[in-house]
Amino acid sequence: MTRLSLEELRELSEAILRRHGFSEPHVQGVTETVLAGERDGCTSHGVWRLLGCIHTARAGKVSLDAVPELSEPAPALVRVDAKGGFSQCAFDLGLPKLVEKARSQGIAAMAVNHCVHFSALWVEIEQIVAHGLVALAVTPAQAYVAPAGGTRPLFGTNPIAFGWPRAGQNPYVFDFATTVVARGEIQLHEREGKSIPLGWGIDVQGNPSTDASAVLDGAMLTFGGHKGSALATMVELIAGPLIGDLTSAESTVFDEGTKSSPYHGELLIAIDPARFLGAEAPQHLARAETLFESIVDMGARLPSQRRFTARERSLKEGVEISDSLYADLRALLE
Amino acid sequence: MTRLSLEELRELSEAILRRHGFSEPHVQGVTETVLAGERDGCTSHGVWRLLGCIHTARAGKVSLDAVPELSEPAPALVRVDAKGGFSQCAFDLGLPKLVEKARSQGIAAMAVNHCVHFSALWVEIEQIVAHGLVALAVTPAQAYVAPAGGTRPLFGTNPIAFGWPRAGQNPYVFDFATTVVARGEIQLHEREGKSIPLGWGIDVQGNPSTDASAVLDGAMLTFGGHKGSALATMVELIAGPLIGDLTSAESTVFDEGTKSSPYHGELLIAIDPARFLGAEAPQHLARAETLFESIVDMGARLPSQRRFTARERSLKEGVEISDSLYADLRALLE
Repeated sequence: MTRLSLEELRELSEAILRRHGFSEPHVQGVTETVLAGERDGCTSHGVWRLLGCIHTARAGKVSLDAVPELSEPAPALVRVDAKGGFSQCAFDLGLPKLVEKARSQGIAAMAVNHCVHFSALWVEIEQIVAHGLVALAVTPAQAYVAPAGGTRPLFGTNPIAFGWPRAGQNPYVFDFATTVVARGEIQLHEREGKSIPLGWGIDVQGNPSTDASAVLDGAMLTFGGHKGSALATMVELIAGPLIGDLTSAESTVFDEGTKSSPYHGELLIAIDPARFLGAEAPQHLARAETLFESIVDMGARLPSQRRFTARERSLKEGVEISDSLYADLRALLE
Repeated sequence: MTRLSLEELRELSEAILRRHGFSEPHVQGVTETVLAGERDGCTSHGVWRLLGCIHTARAGKVSLDAVPELSEPAPALVRVDAKGGFSQCAFDLGLPKLVEKARSQGIAAMAVNHCVHFSALWVEIEQIVAHGLVALAVTPAQAYVAPAGGTRPLFGTNPIAFGWPRAGQNPYVFDFATTVVARGEIQLHEREGKSIPLGWGIDVQGNPSTDASAVLDGAMLTFGGHKGSALATMVELIAGPLIGDLTSAESTVFDEGTKSSPYHGELLIAIDPARFLGAEAPQHLARAETLFESIVDMGARLPSQRRFTARERSLKEGVEISDSLYADLRALLE
């Protein structure tokens, strides 16, 4: 393992992205995202993703210098056209408008369109919640996942992320794939030559398999059977056709077999508790704290606790990445 | 079994509710809901619920003649105070305003506050979707469900329901509890003296149990482990403190051991696809149809198909209810 400070990792990420021709806003946006993943111990969304970013760039499936464009189709709606670039610059452009609309209208939705998306959604959720808003985000992916009762890939891993602001401490945040596990988890198993547990997916014939490569070629399965499958369908619909963007199956066609990061849209919703609650907001938000305490008091864990603990440690001690990953990353500088 | 036409069942329901002192708007509202459940083959949300309605009335835990009140805290927010009555009249009052706001603002949210809620959410979702809107609804219940990793009840069954309009045919609708099964399902098992499968819940000591009564006294479990548990937490937050209403645990305290229908709030969100898509709406909604076709073509089922099939049959042939339930319902007329 190689230990690096977050600052060293930042310089490495920036250098790689500049070396491959990304414009400075994209260099910064992508670096912030992969650094946040690595810092929080989410290795499947950490600097390992830079390999995918450069692969996608080489395949010609992402714009290196797209300048996103914002529009306001309705008083409570924002759209940002990412113009084929990575999602981060589009999100950054839209965020202030989403916050402003949530505050003025009570609830607002933002569509990020035509973006290449590989970010963990909690990175975005935390930025919305930092403004005292409740946030929800969903995005499709590429067709990796079979519907409950189906045999062929149709859905993406279709994550759902949610955030709730907590005064004076880390927010309540969850972010999970509607599959049994994240696709990145299976890819890491494949990379490390490990088998996967039964139930994560099926092979191309539709049979259960413990072979990571076979499942990546076949189809992953949704968590919770038909319920997870229904949620995955909802994500396809509201982050696809509803916002005039691609479904996971359409994103796969766009990919043309290059195995690039998925190109599609994302839907984010923000709600301002102060508009629902007025002067009574503090007393009601205090009741949410009672709920969290009840969860923790019986020995259960809040979803992002492990991540926040890793963050504290990483900020002090830096992070460790495997020697092979470090070598692969340094090779991208040549 | 006793076979009844829907019209006969309607008359029976109305007579029971009038006999117990409900005002005419509540008689109509509650009857529509339980009739819709029975018609669609959802017996756990059918006329069986009338027993619970009358029990709740006798316990003094629902207002028989509440007149709901509407307010508009922000341009995209509606609140309806049900004033302690069953939720239906409050929903009926708020629906036109929710629809109007979704169309003018693009997205809108409605809180129904201080209501006694036993309705299946799809009944409400279908009414929103009938206006060409995309709809989401969540509500807590009483504390029946342990968080993942916990041992004591804290969450309600906390259903999540979603609807998507489909031109010229039944909408895409799902509505499921964030528990492994609906509480009504376990109650029906208890009523019929049947055991339940392992995994549905735990007893008061926190041990897995197949005894329906033991689980109703202990705690139900969320579907999909920590993911279902996170969704249940989200429902507590956004249909509880966010809208200034009770969490499931608080609703249980309010109940004072009377085993009445739960008193709390509900959050509904409506989005107008036409505001996101403008003139391009038809072409994007057509791509949603392609998604549905892909699901059905591989032999998987759309969530509400069974319900819509039952509806067609019931409208022609009426419904069958058990002799014992029919006797219990008729006894409420005496």
